[in-house]
Amino acid sequence: MIRALRPDDRQPIRELLDSTGHFTAPDIDVALELVDRALSEGEASGYLIHVLTEPDGTSGGDVVRGYVCFGPTPMTDGTYDLYWIAVHVSQQGNGFGRALLRFAEEQVAQRGARLLLIETSSQASYSGTVRFYERSGYVLVARIADFYRVDDDKLVFAKRIRA
Amino acid sequence: MIRALRPDDRQPIRELLDSTGHFTAPDIDVALELVDRALSEGEASGYLIHVLTEPDGTSGGDVVRGYVCFGPTPMTDGTYDLYWIAVHVSQQGNGFGRALLRFAEEQVAQRGARLLLIETSSQASYSGTVRFYERSGYVLVARIADFYRVDDDKLVFAKRIRA
Repeated sequence: MIRALRPDDRQPIRELLDSTGHFTAPDIDVALELVDRALSEGEASGYLIHVLTEPDGTSGGDVVRGYVCFGPTPMTDGTYDLYWIAVHVSQQGNGFGRALLRFAEEQVAQRGARLLLIETSSQASYSGTVRFYERSGYVLVARIADFYRVDDDKLVFAKRIRA
Repeated sequence: MIRALRPDDRQPIRELLDSTGHFTAPDIDVALELVDRALSEGEASGYLIHVLTEPDGTSGGDVVRGYVCFGPTPMTDGTYDLYWIAVHVSQQGNGFGRALLRFAEEQVAQRGARLLLIETSSQASYSGTVRFYERSGYVLVARIADFYRVDDDKLVFAKRIRA
């Protein structure tokens, strides 16, 4: 199930980001700043955040397995950025990333998006992520050398969105 | 003279952005949101803003002719973005843009920048801006088609910064 962000999702999101091993503590702070802005300002923040959950047999509640954060790119007409997408390391390979990405694409299409952009790193540890975007129909449209740090380029993937 | 942003610079910045004819009202709101964040949070906002002024003979104060807004690019080590640079239309051709750009480059160099990025539009009305960046040593490193709107691409210029 994919549902809108709630305040009690903040800690599970922190834990799943940490579990991936991809992100430093400052990186995770950046992600959580967007969570906080979405919680306090709603869609006016420019950040739309949803979580993918499964039922928790013991509590009767749900457990957060992954999340996605996207929003309209400022100063553009119809371009959206997918800022964050992550699934807990213990739950990868179950199609949750694909479900979150498809959900984001549907949401931005409903809002009139023409173009959805995703930025990622050229580091070898992101090769699975890059293959995931390519399999999902994203095309590499830009590469900025040494963006994140020396020898760590920014890759920009894009997908045309149909209304 | 180039000095740090003050609260009473907000209105002159709005007026000079409007004077250029490059920006819509929502664009100017985005620029002023960064002004407000810099005024309320200082450098912790991630936005460093300075204005170029000339003496005002009548008031004894100064008059804002242009401004520049730059800051560290989130999630990077040593990359900075130049978010805004603008000079009042009545004062263009006086070297103020060049002085503001050089000032920003010196400031980011002092903060350990390796790379300074500037994004702009491919529209014909920005051709003077593009020539200004090229003359100032910036190289086109990426182009994202239809980014701002259909047939209006994003151009990314970069300059290597020496400490």
